[in-house]
Amino acid sequence: GYGRFGLVYDADGANSNTHESALDHRFRLTVTGISETDNGLKFEGRIRWEANDGGFSSNAANAASVGGAGFAVTTGGFRLDVGHVSDVFDSGDVLNWGGHGAGYTYFQEQSSNFNGFRKTGFGAGAAAAQTIKGRYTVSGFTGSISYTLNDTASTTDEYWQIGAGYSFGDHRVGAAYGDSDIAGSQWALGVDGSFGDFSYAVLVGDNDTAADTMFGASGSYAISAATSINANFSSGGAAGNDTSYGLGVRHSLGGGVTLGAGIGSASDGDTVADAGVQFNF
Amino acid sequence: GYGRFGLVYDADGANSNTHESALDHRFRLTVTGISETDNGLKFEGRIRWEANDGGFSSNAANAASVGGAGFAVTTGGFRLDVGHVSDVFDSGDVLNWGGHGAGYTYFQEQSSNFNGFRKTGFGAGAAAAQTIKGRYTVSGFTGSISYTLNDTASTTDEYWQIGAGYSFGDHRVGAAYGDSDIAGSQWALGVDGSFGDFSYAVLVGDNDTAADTMFGASGSYAISAATSINANFSSGGAAGNDTSYGLGVRHSLGGGVTLGAGIGSASDGDTVADAGVQFNF
Amino acid sequence: GYGRFGLVYDADGANSNTHESALDHRFRLTVTGISETDNGLKFEGRIRWEANDGGFSSNAANAASVGGAGFAVTTGGFRLDVGHVSDVFDSGDVLNWGGHGAGYTYFQEQSSNFNGFRKTGFGAGAAAAQTIKGRYTVSGFTGSISYTLNDTASTTDEYWQIGAGYSFGDHRVGAAYGDSDIAGSQWALGVDGSFGDFSYAVLVGDNDTAADTMFGASGSYAISAATSINANFSSGGAAGNDTSYGLGVRHSLGGGVTLGAGIGSASDGDTVADAGVQFNF
Repeated sequence: GYGRFGLVYDADGANSNTHESALDHRFRLTVTGISETDNGLKFEGRIRWEANDGGFSSNAANAASVGGAGFAVTTGGFRLDVGHVSDVFDSGDVLNWGGHGAGYTYFQEQSSNFNGFRKTGFGAGAAAAQTIKGRYTVSGFTGSISYTLNDTASTTDEYWQIGAGYSFGDHRVGAAYGDSDIAGSQWALGVDGSFGDFSYAVLVGDNDTAADTMFGASGSYAISAATSINANFSSGGAAGNDTSYGLGVRHSLGGGVTLGAGIGSASDGDTVADAGVQFNF
Repeated sequence: GYGRFGLVYDADGANSNTHESALDHRFRLTVTGISETDNGLKFEGRIRWEANDGGFSSNAANAASVGGAGFAVTTGGFRLDVGHVSDVFDSGDVLNWGGHGAGYTYFQEQSSNFNGFRKTGFGAGAAAAQTIKGRYTVSGFTGSISYTLNDTASTTDEYWQIGAGYSFGDHRVGAAYGDSDIAGSQWALGVDGSFGDFSYAVLVGDNDTAADTMFGASGSYAISAATSINANFSSGGAAGNDTSYGLGVRHSLGGGVTLGAGIGSASDGDTVADAGVQFNF
Repeated sequence: GYGRFGLVYDADGANSNTHESALDHRFRLTVTGISETDNGLKFEGRIRWEANDGGFSSNAANAASVGGAGFAVTTGGFRLDVGHVSDVFDSGDVLNWGGHGAGYTYFQEQSSNFNGFRKTGFGAGAAAAQTIKGRYTVSGFTGSISYTLNDTASTTDEYWQIGAGYSFGDHRVGAAYGDSDIAGSQWALGVDGSFGDFSYAVLVGDNDTAADTMFGASGSYAISAATSINANFSSGGAAGNDTSYGLGVRHSLGGGVTLGAGIGSASDGDTVADAGVQFNF
């Protein structure tokens, strides 16, 4: 799990927040139970707790919430996920969705304008529908396919997703496609990788719900072994969206502790910023 | 704890399920805190979390629920349980209640028709009433007595239970009796044990609530070191009950991972079946 | 964490309890995640679960509750707490608030009559407002200052608290002061320490809400290496308060297991008592 805390700011032009700045925190704890058969098949099950502050609407320290269970079976290059688990778009199997986000809370990412995608995963909440996903990796190739059962709210909306990716050297290309009865089809293409100290990611996608094709790009440059700067932008999506962008810096203190800060402009035009620390345990 | 997932089926003649088959899962996590005094008195306290799928009514992955606390003190052959703990009928101290159940979810057991018994234990939920239970074991003899306080819903319904069992070689006989102001009296007799690769259990019982005396039997045969087949039936109970029965197979993959499947007929006449995996961690 | 269980009694002159005695239990589990940077800065995050019985109103074993997250950063003599954490009055940084309480549940303490103080801390519940507290210790001196944000219920009631303490040999003196827009000001002075086998604590304080200045004192005497007796009283506070007092005994069984019992008179005049065991794990 991890803990993080710091200050977050939203200029609040379009929102109705109680305050424009907040003392942010998050504590996340994932418990994973693992068993391995005599022939090397690995079974995992996990649940997660997460406690957050009250955000821009209150100064509370909210009680932790707990989620549903996710399972995985792994053998060689094959992995099957069942239950409260990621679909293809959420999994990162073939696409780097968020890229190099800004701020210690990753408040602005290359995917910030990517509205209307069906994309769900494991977390500290219940899942309205279970997902089954299979992933196979051989040499640089990864294929991934998922099926999400019809959910309780919209009983006919089961959906399929499929994706493929290929890695060559320090670079990777990937594509994913999905279809559901209610939300229609969606697709995304991505490239990510690194040239020495510079890392990059690019993402383009569209779906039947969003007004405009979405495009995003992000990069990070390591100015020393412990410190990096990053930048990203995201465009398109819902009808009234502005192009959003962010700038950030991250500094590792070692031992899993990282300081981070960022500033940017959100898709609703507000100036947003944060500064804080995350520690992994 | 353990995780399990697989497919479950209910022909749904008598139920009003949203679907007849479901993607089942369960994740169970018990945290136990243990202290031991200088003279060897062992104190334990525990709570449990459990996350399940939405069953036959929805495809959801429900958030985990958490239960009340159970405590135990152990010294030599004596054990005292206090709080959210099993009474005599639930404990297995002197009776093998479920016997050799069918399916990886144990959907059909020799006790499936045993309706109307007061029988509560530790789990991932609150308990309407605390229980105090004492158990003493010396040589092959086990005596067990429990008292459950009046509960919040029916304030006069405190109840007592008492049981005794005796083991000789690979076999055990046991009997238990209980009485409550509201539900009246209940009794059960059981025998269980094994002849080499064949294990068996038999249970008979009645109470003032059920229409008919209940009888159940089950057996399991180890056809190899890793694989066993099992069968059970259960009769009597509530007025409209059919005799229920089940057939199953179980195969260990080592490392605490077991495949299981079963098919049977429930007390409401429905055909029921399952196939899946359980892994203990 | 710890577990405890036993019997508690309240003569119930002023209350409307369902019963005067209850089978008490508590199970408390705190999970702490810790990271340490290369230069020795220690980061901690924690959440807590707690399961209790239904008290004097029911015999239930209630499901565990979980709280919000608290964080701390420590380096040398300095410690910063953020989130769901103690303010100065709650922290014990400069004051021994409860002193030497009576009973295994500490039902009666030298602070039992100290009504109307703003004093909140970490626990198994949500916090209506986050707190930031800094503490610095050098030689025998400790300084502590906290700021609690305005809470969701009374949005203008942010409050400050400040305290200082000094230790010399086996003794310590401390003072704390706090002010809030709604509840007004509050102060407390305390002395605590030990003379060989005898330990003592004294506390005096007042606030703008309570009718009378409050005073409390407590002591504990070790009659052997494992056994101690204690006594305390508390006076003043709300308008109708009686002086409350308690007598108790505590006996360690080793391994973190302690038997305790006590009897006393509460501030509402009721006779109160308990007897039970606590085990730490």
